[in-house]
Amino acid sequence: MTVHHFQPEIYYNTIGGHQPVLKIADGDTVVTNTVDARGWDHSGESVAGRGNPMTGPFYVEGAQPGDTLAIQLESMTPNRGWGWTSSVLAPNVVDPTAAAALPPSEITRWSVQEDLVFLEKPTSGLVNLKLKASPFLGCFGVAPSRGQAISTATSGVYGGNMDYKGLVSGVTVYFPVLSEGALFHLGDGHAVQGCGEIVGTGVEISLDVRFTVRVLKGKTIGWPRGESETHLFCIGNARPLDQALQHATTEMLSLLKEDYGLTDSEASLLMGQAVEYEVANVFNPAYSVVCKVPKAVLSML
Amino acid sequence: MTVHHFQPEIYYNTIGGHQPVLKIADGDTVVTNTVDARGWDHSGESVAGRGNPMTGPFYVEGAQPGDTLAIQLESMTPNRGWGWTSSVLAPNVVDPTAAAALPPSEITRWSVQEDLVFLEKPTSGLVNLKLKASPFLGCFGVAPSRGQAISTATSGVYGGNMDYKGLVSGVTVYFPVLSEGALFHLGDGHAVQGCGEIVGTGVEISLDVRFTVRVLKGKTIGWPRGESETHLFCIGNARPLDQALQHATTEMLSLLKEDYGLTDSEASLLMGQAVEYEVANVFNPAYSVVCKVPKAVLSML
Amino acid sequence: MTVHHFQPEIYYNTIGGHQPVLKIADGDTVVTNTVDARGWDHSGESVAGRGNPMTGPFYVEGAQPGDTLAIQLESMTPNRGWGWTSSVLAPNVVDPTAAAALPPSEITRWSVQEDLVFLEKPTSGLVNLKLKASPFLGCFGVAPSRGQAISTATSGVYGGNMDYKGLVSGVTVYFPVLSEGALFHLGDGHAVQGCGEIVGTGVEISLDVRFTVRVLKGKTIGWPRGESETHLFCIGNARPLDQALQHATTEMLSLLKEDYGLTDSEASLLMGQAVEYEVANVFNPAYSVVCKVPKAVLSML
Amino acid sequence: MTVHHFQPEIYYNTIGGHQPVLKIADGDTVVTNTVDARGWDHSGESVAGRGNPMTGPFYVEGAQPGDTLAIQLESMTPNRGWGWTSSVLAPNVVDPTAAAALPPSEITRWSVQEDLVFLEKPTSGLVNLKLKASPFLGCFGVAPSRGQAISTATSGVYGGNMDYKGLVSGVTVYFPVLSEGALFHLGDGHAVQGCGEIVGTGVEISLDVRFTVRVLKGKTIGWPRGESETHLFCIGNARPLDQALQHATTEMLSLLKEDYGLTDSEASLLMGQAVEYEVANVFNPAYSVVCKVPKAVLSML
Repeated sequence: MTVHHFQPEIYYNTIGGHQPVLKIADGDTVVTNTVDARGWDHSGESVAGRGNPMTGPFYVEGAQPGDTLAIQLESMTPNRGWGWTSSVLAPNVVDPTAAAALPPSEITRWSVQEDLVFLEKPTSGLVNLKLKASPFLGCFGVAPSRGQAISTATSGVYGGNMDYKGLVSGVTVYFPVLSEGALFHLGDGHAVQGCGEIVGTGVEISLDVRFTVRVLKGKTIGWPRGESETHLFCIGNARPLDQALQHATTEMLSLLKEDYGLTDSEASLLMGQAVEYEVANVFNPAYSVVCKVPKAVLSML
Repeated sequence: MTVHHFQPEIYYNTIGGHQPVLKIADGDTVVTNTVDARGWDHSGESVAGRGNPMTGPFYVEGAQPGDTLAIQLESMTPNRGWGWTSSVLAPNVVDPTAAAALPPSEITRWSVQEDLVFLEKPTSGLVNLKLKASPFLGCFGVAPSRGQAISTATSGVYGGNMDYKGLVSGVTVYFPVLSEGALFHLGDGHAVQGCGEIVGTGVEISLDVRFTVRVLKGKTIGWPRGESETHLFCIGNARPLDQALQHATTEMLSLLKEDYGLTDSEASLLMGQAVEYEVANVFNPAYSVVCKVPKAVLSML
Repeated sequence: MTVHHFQPEIYYNTIGGHQPVLKIADGDTVVTNTVDARGWDHSGESVAGRGNPMTGPFYVEGAQPGDTLAIQLESMTPNRGWGWTSSVLAPNVVDPTAAAALPPSEITRWSVQEDLVFLEKPTSGLVNLKLKASPFLGCFGVAPSRGQAISTATSGVYGGNMDYKGLVSGVTVYFPVLSEGALFHLGDGHAVQGCGEIVGTGVEISLDVRFTVRVLKGKTIGWPRGESETHLFCIGNARPLDQALQHATTEMLSLLKEDYGLTDSEASLLMGQAVEYEVANVFNPAYSVVCKVPKAVLSML
Repeated sequence: MTVHHFQPEIYYNTIGGHQPVLKIADGDTVVTNTVDARGWDHSGESVAGRGNPMTGPFYVEGAQPGDTLAIQLESMTPNRGWGWTSSVLAPNVVDPTAAAALPPSEITRWSVQEDLVFLEKPTSGLVNLKLKASPFLGCFGVAPSRGQAISTATSGVYGGNMDYKGLVSGVTVYFPVLSEGALFHLGDGHAVQGCGEIVGTGVEISLDVRFTVRVLKGKTIGWPRGESETHLFCIGNARPLDQALQHATTEMLSLLKEDYGLTDSEASLLMGQAVEYEVANVFNPAYSVVCKVPKAVLSML
């Protein structure tokens, strides 16, 4: 149960079988930080290449393919006072004819002060807009199978650039271990974001992060799962949105059968009348959909 | 401001230019009832053909194409003590290989008592499952354009079988008027339902319904919109899910520009960091996605 | 075996249960004509409302739901010397970012002389472009089920606006009969068209048409089928393209099992190594995909 | 202009920045061979891991990101007398409910004799089925950008597992160079295949292959392109099918503008009335669609 303080010096723009930056044990805690999606650090200096540069990978001793890696997200705190977003809806989230009428997008800076996020130089319409900060990691996960190294632009069964705003402090995320040592990568912090990441960014920011790892030996899952204060959930990553939803729903069906002993029909009856979905991102090469069941409902099983 | 008490005697399985059952005026209230998706009424008797038989249509005086019809949903109350659902996930909401492994679906009865919904004959795994009732209309809307009459299995800009669980009492829904008199139809009550209607049904039930109509002269909208206690929202209906989301997002962009005076960029900045989505249904021929913005955010504009 | 010469006087912009313009018998031939997609006739005069106005419907005596209506397309001949197209790719057939960079579309006239089609006023790059005419009906089919009347913009199991360039003279098309008398509608002639109708039009033109109907009593099909000189084929209509392909493929599987006595596995082995697809349209509200098997292959069964 | 005879000894199941097996020069020819999708070689012996093991990569001197690599496919000849397929349609190519009714798939052997392909042990329905061989490489391409190594199950802008049956001897394929030396990989031979690879395989076989490389310095393309005896074409790889088609169509638009000097409108007018599509595969994680224009049409420009 060691607490590792780790300062990254190298960043990867793929998630894959890179040389580990640190070996850690089941139960260990890591205190580290991440640069933003363009490689800008806490001081605004460019220290890594564009495109979701990753802190890590961390090699978790004992993690083998077929196991599950649990990441307890203990804290994610912006370590500078500003973030940035794109300013215009992505062309793929509006009707094709509406997309053609949109103006060009510009990088726009937001101030991040304590728990508030607001535009640095708002135009008249948004002068009073103040959003509540809700920091999370947009891109994190484990090395994919077969020795692949995959761009941090996208996501898959191994996690990656899911951009799910629900992955905040207090949540535990579960990844299928697909290579020896799991090789956990993290980065792409957002101070806040709407559902879908529909302008193509959250409020992109560098973060101080603290997390604890656990290895669930012999527990095999098909897609990332998670637990928040109120819900259990499963994440599916794919295009189109329909397929991402299919993966998430299929994984929830497995969860209810394996972890709660329900039959197909029982799981279906429960899910049909109690499931919730979130659209995590509808921008990246793979979209992400979250299938959730309230713990209040699960407590009746 | 008349209150009409209307007992239906004829039911349509399409939404279209049918002979109105009643002419009502702007501001009038209607107290009526709806049979369930299979045509079973409050006593369980079959009084209409299968497939979302509609009460109505109601002709609203003064409503012309280019106007908007507002429906204030004042109450939707189950008028019998039981509903029914399918028992197995629809094959299109899980991975294709998982779908092949599912058992056949059966019609399953649920007890609906006051504000609780539970299985009449639960198998062991669901013996304690009790869901909170949250009744809503699965299928309602106005006659489509061009003299079309469209099956109540599906939905479009005119509304229809959207199966959105958020359309509960207290919500106001807005439909684009597409033919003279709007011709409002309603039916397909659900006592409760999860997101997506992923077993293909909610807890299907007959309802007593009370609603008030208003005609917004000269107000033109592209897709159904609504207002709840906490959110403004827009509904897009199409396949695949991606396109339904595009319609809902495009309509919200229009709403923010027209009703709040925002520019494309201002609306995008707000939506990008504050929008929420709900998957209303991912089962019907057209899927339905809801794009929502919190009124707490809009109050800062 | 009567030959009916029919001059239309009324045109419908929906396919549905309209009053028949003529009753014909199994084996009868009809000689008639169709106006173009905007309602312009052989002399260029506007005689019908925009949006694929239909000649018909023709009531076919003896045709009942559960039967199949065969339409032998004997001739489709342009009856004027010009057609028109849109001039720019539809925004939904290119990448979203590419769509935003396209210029506005304009109606562009083409000359149709004997078997050649060429621009009336070509810009320098297309001065020598001469395409071979290959006239076909873009939109035709039978009244849909449940008393529906559906816009001629779209298509379904009943046929409709499929815009499939393979439906030329000499081909027989099969439609499922969904209402008494089948109620056959036709229109939306094209002098030529590429696959996919990717500018949103073919070379739109009015046609003289001759066809013969046959009723296949007790033969039930799920989607439009056809036979050309070289292939048997099935048409699926839906969005997205994936689903249109699923419908067409499923119908071909049925065809091979029912008409050739193959098992699921035999049909799969054959289709896997010998099937061909055409993208008929990727523009309309429902896309159309054609699944084809060469008759040369079928002759080995 | 050297001819290299290369016997592979190592095979990769990803396409990426692997150590080159041979360095070759612009204009060189390579004579080599490939094992089948399961790693079985000319003698039926297993010599490589399952999942499209690749021969190569070949480092092409002078090839830099921003260039194009042309591969002239001179010959692809089965080097054993049998291949294998799956026996049942993939569940994602038929309607979800139809998929559930399909029997389990089995590996099925086909005899490959000279130019004929037929089942080794046909059941009664397929006893006379003999298909004409048309061998091609299912999976080939160059190393992707950003140092990625991507499973040979899928495809992208770099090529990969496109399973396009049109890539036969005599065709030249063009790939965007994305890393120094291009790093060309090849494998996954098929003796014959229908469109779409809808049982999930072609007739999988080991091949003798001969190809010549050329480096087009400073020629930049966005997606794989090709030239056959009759057509120029562009390949788009993505899910869903709609998006694959968008990529292919966008690339053809670029080709016509850059290589033929057409305007957006001229290219659109030509494509709208003359384009053809092929569905290369609708099975792999990324689907592949081919957008083709006849050289007979291009010769008029």
